[in-house]
Amino acid sequence: MEHTYRLVISCPDRVGIVAKVSNFLSTYNGWITEASHHSDTQTGWFFMRHEIKATSIPFGLDQFRAAFEPIAREFNMNWHIADSAQPKKVILMCSKESHCVADLLHRWHSKEINAEIVAVISNHDDLRRMVEWHEIPYHHVPVSKENKEEAFAHIDELFQKYEADVVVLARYMQILPGELCEKYSGKVINIHHSFLPSFAGARPYHQAYSRGVKLIGATCHYVTQDLDEGPIIEQDVIRITHSDSIEDMVRLGKDVEKNVLARGLRSHIEDRVITYENKTVVFD
Amino acid sequence: MEHTYRLVISCPDRVGIVAKVSNFLSTYNGWITEASHHSDTQTGWFFMRHEIKATSIPFGLDQFRAAFEPIAREFNMNWHIADSAQPKKVILMCSKESHCVADLLHRWHSKEINAEIVAVISNHDDLRRMVEWHEIPYHHVPVSKENKEEAFAHIDELFQKYEADVVVLARYMQILPGELCEKYSGKVINIHHSFLPSFAGARPYHQAYSRGVKLIGATCHYVTQDLDEGPIIEQDVIRITHSDSIEDMVRLGKDVEKNVLARGLRSHIEDRVITYENKTVVFD
Amino acid sequence: MEHTYRLVISCPDRVGIVAKVSNFLSTYNGWITEASHHSDTQTGWFFMRHEIKATSIPFGLDQFRAAFEPIAREFNMNWHIADSAQPKKVILMCSKESHCVADLLHRWHSKEINAEIVAVISNHDDLRRMVEWHEIPYHHVPVSKENKEEAFAHIDELFQKYEADVVVLARYMQILPGELCEKYSGKVINIHHSFLPSFAGARPYHQAYSRGVKLIGATCHYVTQDLDEGPIIEQDVIRITHSDSIEDMVRLGKDVEKNVLARGLRSHIEDRVITYENKTVVFD
Amino acid sequence: MEHTYRLVISCPDRVGIVAKVSNFLSTYNGWITEASHHSDTQTGWFFMRHEIKATSIPFGLDQFRAAFEPIAREFNMNWHIADSAQPKKVILMCSKESHCVADLLHRWHSKEINAEIVAVISNHDDLRRMVEWHEIPYHHVPVSKENKEEAFAHIDELFQKYEADVVVLARYMQILPGELCEKYSGKVINIHHSFLPSFAGARPYHQAYSRGVKLIGATCHYVTQDLDEGPIIEQDVIRITHSDSIEDMVRLGKDVEKNVLARGLRSHIEDRVITYENKTVVFD
Repeated sequence: MEHTYRLVISCPDRVGIVAKVSNFLSTYNGWITEASHHSDTQTGWFFMRHEIKATSIPFGLDQFRAAFEPIAREFNMNWHIADSAQPKKVILMCSKESHCVADLLHRWHSKEINAEIVAVISNHDDLRRMVEWHEIPYHHVPVSKENKEEAFAHIDELFQKYEADVVVLARYMQILPGELCEKYSGKVINIHHSFLPSFAGARPYHQAYSRGVKLIGATCHYVTQDLDEGPIIEQDVIRITHSDSIEDMVRLGKDVEKNVLARGLRSHIEDRVITYENKTVVFD
Repeated sequence: MEHTYRLVISCPDRVGIVAKVSNFLSTYNGWITEASHHSDTQTGWFFMRHEIKATSIPFGLDQFRAAFEPIAREFNMNWHIADSAQPKKVILMCSKESHCVADLLHRWHSKEINAEIVAVISNHDDLRRMVEWHEIPYHHVPVSKENKEEAFAHIDELFQKYEADVVVLARYMQILPGELCEKYSGKVINIHHSFLPSFAGARPYHQAYSRGVKLIGATCHYVTQDLDEGPIIEQDVIRITHSDSIEDMVRLGKDVEKNVLARGLRSHIEDRVITYENKTVVFD
Repeated sequence: MEHTYRLVISCPDRVGIVAKVSNFLSTYNGWITEASHHSDTQTGWFFMRHEIKATSIPFGLDQFRAAFEPIAREFNMNWHIADSAQPKKVILMCSKESHCVADLLHRWHSKEINAEIVAVISNHDDLRRMVEWHEIPYHHVPVSKENKEEAFAHIDELFQKYEADVVVLARYMQILPGELCEKYSGKVINIHHSFLPSFAGARPYHQAYSRGVKLIGATCHYVTQDLDEGPIIEQDVIRITHSDSIEDMVRLGKDVEKNVLARGLRSHIEDRVITYENKTVVFD
Repeated sequence: MEHTYRLVISCPDRVGIVAKVSNFLSTYNGWITEASHHSDTQTGWFFMRHEIKATSIPFGLDQFRAAFEPIAREFNMNWHIADSAQPKKVILMCSKESHCVADLLHRWHSKEINAEIVAVISNHDDLRRMVEWHEIPYHHVPVSKENKEEAFAHIDELFQKYEADVVVLARYMQILPGELCEKYSGKVINIHHSFLPSFAGARPYHQAYSRGVKLIGATCHYVTQDLDEGPIIEQDVIRITHSDSIEDMVRLGKDVEKNVLARGLRSHIEDRVITYENKTVVFD
């Protein structure tokens, strides 16, 4: 994989943004390997992502930031630039269910995911052996009604200690406290085992079974204070029939969950996702 | 298409049902071309559908009914038998949107659907020319707040006059009164332009757009008194991205609506659908 | 739909293309509503499409062409600009099967397709009534072994008479002569009822049935002299099982064919397709 | 999971088969939890699978076989009965690519697959550590042009030593010799990384890339002496675009491969697959 810079911008739409940015890049001889744009006509907002060969530019990220700042100011941009050579630090959180964790660990192990899994945190000890085989630290932090506050204080410390860029709730069955949602806003990704907004909350497959739907799904989204209502990054579904029991739905759903979470996480890690108005722009 | 009888049964599950029914058929030399079974372990209910070559049996439907009745009584069966040579009579109801009506008319015109479309009823006059080209009577019955009661009384008369077996709400934008839902229970099919239970009610594509989902869908279901909550027959979805406007979603959604409605209607018309507990068994 | 210009470019990749083009547009105050780029790293070729609000630019297409020409020359561009207000002229060719023609006619009739269907040509007279209801001229040009040459000479005259921009083989069961493929290269679109390259040639559903595949598909592609081997624009599939007969496959396949053809044609008509090396770039 | 017997039958179609079989089961009080039938009208062949609660029948498999034999003879049945409590013995064969093996191992580890993975055989030593963590024996049997004969003789011995019921080629990059294909006919399952019959043979993603297809797929099939031409059990596809490189296709394809192989293997292991005429009946 070539070493690239990813320049991600959102700003009010107007004439001349692309010209300004591409001129800037061109002036420094920046070789664009990928460019994506989106104009949201309803909000009048503009979104843009460039992937640039790092070696084609004569300076590093700090200098880039300084040089680009005047343009950003002129166009009122929200923006950041990231370096593909600095993989994001990811913490996985899980409970007893292993499928999402095992899948992400294998993708990481086989170098499919360009990120560093720095730790796994779980309220149970079940997956320790699997995680430690990968030589990743495993933190068992039990959460109960009584110790909730201190448990999440400890979890917050772990986030800080590991300098996590992303936290993935890989079928972590606890609800993150509002303060943590707020504090790590845009950095916590959840996989919910339904096609949201249908069947938010607990036991979505049971809900789907009672309702008699003909497709079940999974949703990867950013965590916000409103349970299962954060911006959606990725979704997918699989067909079921009347002959599928809840157990069948759980089994079939796992494959959807794994793939949706992996795709959503990948998009986030590669700086392909921009959130606005509780929605996302995802540049594939 | 070979002339067949369709024997459709649901009853409490117990040992010996299949033996009894297949013996009965075998005794009369019945040639089974299709057989489907389903046991619902949660409710302990059993479902069964046979398709039998009509020419292989030495008598007609009335005699069949008389001969089978003792078995039905023994096993407490809900059951019926239908003749593929007696196509069901279908009334389409629509508003101004033409895609579902045009699609069903073409499937009927090209003999893909084995049913008789006996009339189209609409609260607007827009689609008259298209319908009448197919030599199908078109009834313009405007519905307003003021005339609702008499309009639906008139519509009910039309249902009776045409002896409709099935009524299809093919993007008919009015809500059927509770009495009609009740009276024609299990005979009225609706296409809703969302993946229910998400986005029930009005303007589902607008709802989907605001929520930022990554797939949109359509649902074919039986109409009950609870709006958009009847038993689901068929559903499907299509992928969208941030770059799709509401207009794009409407356009993409139309193709899903047409196909889902056509598949759901087909299943109903071929006596493949059994409802129970607000859900369906659909024998493909 | 807003009136737009579509600027479509392909050229050898190098630094500064985007800067040059977006500067050009920005200089004339061009408001970009959609921008898409693609770099093919294997061939070193670059592809680009802009959609620009026509009213934001102070001149028409001819002046645009003159002003842009120096840039195009500098970068060795293949390029063209099209006006969404000048809908392309489309000729449909069909045989006896009506589903694709009926579908396209309805999309056109309901203004979903922004094109002008100027004529339908068929080797049979079966669909005349359906076509003429839409007030579109219908040309019955029978093709046989004996009259092939003169039949296609006549067809070529019709293409010219109607100044067709696009010819759609909507299940036209004849093979276009090599000279016509050559002459109208990049302008003739075919729908093939299989997931190419599987099951090219005659009776693809029969081929699929014998092979026992679990999905069947359809492919929309440009016609070249090599039968069913031209650049693919769009494909899709649908799941089947062992219980589906060839007749079922034909029926299920029709829905895929219609949608794939409609999507492929739409991409072509909106100048979203660029061909290179017998492949396509399709900017959605 | 309830302990069940699976009775799988294929025979020439005629009146009375279902009656005979269901009477037999009913006589012994057999509780049918699943029943599936298929009549192939082209070949006049009939297929049938029953799943029966083991505890509902007053005897074991041997007695069942003896009691059923007369019926089987009368109808010229190919048939077998299997016991869900006797999980099939599976050998995995792999090369360096880990995704399919890791996926199957995890499904086995989490008890999703009701089978016993008795050994892994590979021509490379790369995946030893992963396999041995699961406490499954790993056999490194290098295959080269020179040692092919003795290598496969050794592999055959391993098949016998472990009494394998199923051999899964989980991206095993070697071609099994014809004698082994013959000897273990119907017991060796392969995953091919294309939507067969397209792109058989080597480097299917490269083939797909050159051809410019818009979907890539995977096929799970029984291995026969004709490379990639055995009966297909399961297939699926995923959408790609012009912007996906071969590397992207490899990555996206892996998820399809894993799921298709897992679903195909599951069907085989649960005795849901019957082969005939180089095709399969798969009773879901």
